[in-house]
Amino acid sequence: MYDREIEADRARALIEEVLRGAKDVIFATNGSHGHPNVRTMYVACHDGAEALWFTTSLESSKIIELIKNEKAAIYIKCDGNAEVRLWGKVVILDDRESRERVWCDDLRAAFPDGAHDPNMRVLRFDVISGLYAKEGRSGIFTR
Amino acid sequence: MYDREIEADRARALIEEVLRGAKDVIFATNGSHGHPNVRTMYVACHDGAEALWFTTSLESSKIIELIKNEKAAIYIKCDGNAEVRLWGKVVILDDRESRERVWCDDLRAAFPDGAHDPNMRVLRFDVISGLYAKEGRSGIFTR
Repeated sequence: MYDREIEADRARALIEEVLRGAKDVIFATNGSHGHPNVRTMYVACHDGAEALWFTTSLESSKIIELIKNEKAAIYIKCDGNAEVRLWGKVVILDDRESRERVWCDDLRAAFPDGAHDPNMRVLRFDVISGLYAKEGRSGIFTR
Repeated sequence: MYDREIEADRARALIEEVLRGAKDVIFATNGSHGHPNVRTMYVACHDGAEALWFTTSLESSKIIELIKNEKAAIYIKCDGNAEVRLWGKVVILDDRESRERVWCDDLRAAFPDGAHDPNMRVLRFDVISGLYAKEGRSGIFTR
């Protein structure tokens, strides 16, 4: 193992630490005409490094992008020059339990009807692999 | 035209204004296994909203990604909640003029041999279209 490598278990633990403090992340999809598409998204909650949960409006172009191609990536630039990249697949959810799980009152401006607003969908990003990098050292874990 | 739309010429002018202050941007490529890949990159220089120039190491995975697929996207989150997205194609350059154009002494830590370091390549992101969005209003221009 090169000196610049971080072991998989350690990389995963460092990523989980970053996720505990993560609010806005960069969320990349396969967009139109073969180009990636990128936006900032607020993390509603997460299951360690297993899955990240988001909300979206049905009017968002990312709904169509994710129906066409579930593969996505998340990028987090942390204080102190650490970076996290996650690759995964996104499931679009519409069930009561998922809606109630992600709901918080700050969402009411976007979804006036609350957790069951017909215009809201839940996105669950299921992590396949993750990379943690800082100061030339990096490590990858795969689930 | 809807009230929430910004005209194309105005969107382009607002994007050029953002680019004048842009240092680090989010740079997305088509990565491995059908997933997007994302990293932060420093903008070496730009030609208005026509092209953005970067440097990269030959050891970076993005070189292979861009040889396989030249289509990429750039994302900039600005102060005051404005966002810029650019979609374009990336040309990998190795000529003297391009190398000298992007060179600055801050790059010497990464490329000790200077502007003609054999490990350095220049990336020119040629803009195809761009989106400017702020507070629910947005506008797109296409070149």
